Amino acid sequence: MNLLDEIRFDDAGLVAAIAQQHDSGEVLMLAWMNRDAVVETLQTGQVCYWSRSRGKRWRKGETSGQTQRLVELRVDCDGDALLLRVDQTGVACHTGRRSCFFRAASDGGLVEIAAPEIDPTVLYAAENRPIE
Amino acid sequence: MNLLDEIRFDDAGLVAAIAQQHDSGEVLMLAWMNRDAVVETLQTGQVCYWSRSRGKRWRKGETSGQTQRLVELRVDCDGDALLLRVDQTGVACHTGRRSCFFRAASDGGLVEIAAPEIDPTVLYAAENRPIE
Repeated sequence: MNLLDEIRFDDAGLVAAIAQQHDSGEVLMLAWMNRDAVVETLQTGQVCYWSRSRGKRWRKGETSGQTQRLVELRVDCDGDALLLRVDQTGVACHTGRRSCFFRAASDGGLVEIAAPEIDPTVLYAAENRPIE
Repeated sequence: MNLLDEIRFDDAGLVAAIAQQHDSGEVLMLAWMNRDAVVETLQTGQVCYWSRSRGKRWRKGETSGQTQRLVELRVDCDGDALLLRVDQTGVACHTGRRSCFFRAASDGGLVEIAAPEIDPTVLYAAENRPIE
């Protein structure tokens, strides 16, 4: 059985991937992977997504340093979602927060439940640095 | 600020929703919600999805009894994913397993890392029972 044959990529060739910090259980983000991104992630042990907005492979943290090391890749019962158990370096969110899920429903609106751990301007600056 | 205005539903009117057991941190499943499903979930406190395969509202556990009580609904940074922190009654997966993510990558294939907690035939039988 080939793992890739068990994944049901959608019409755009993508599958949803949840990133979860492996030890704390914190859900960090939801992103998308294509077949190549899955293969690269398994081969390198560093999580690589497919950026729908940029239309290209997105090696998480490649420039900012906020990488995700793959601990375990899980596939759901019908093969159309992945759970990536990872070890997140620094923060997962571009706002400087550990998790992208930092807003919670409250009284019909949203409240922020987590503050940035890194100044986003520092993160943005880091993204302009050459890859080390 | 209206919570619904902060959610970016896709072209099909759907948003991805991750269900996570609120206390253990276990990721249970990934499913989809439309606007009505989000509204109903917030109003009733019981998680309701949109079934893409059946093309209708899917009140989780309505017939099987394997319901999800909403503890907290979170929205990600760009509004195109939800994290539902829930209290799962019984099992989330139709295979009788607690989580739908019961297969892990191993040596290019997949291995099962969790056994059913409920016999699927019992679950299926339950689904044929009238709603209590």
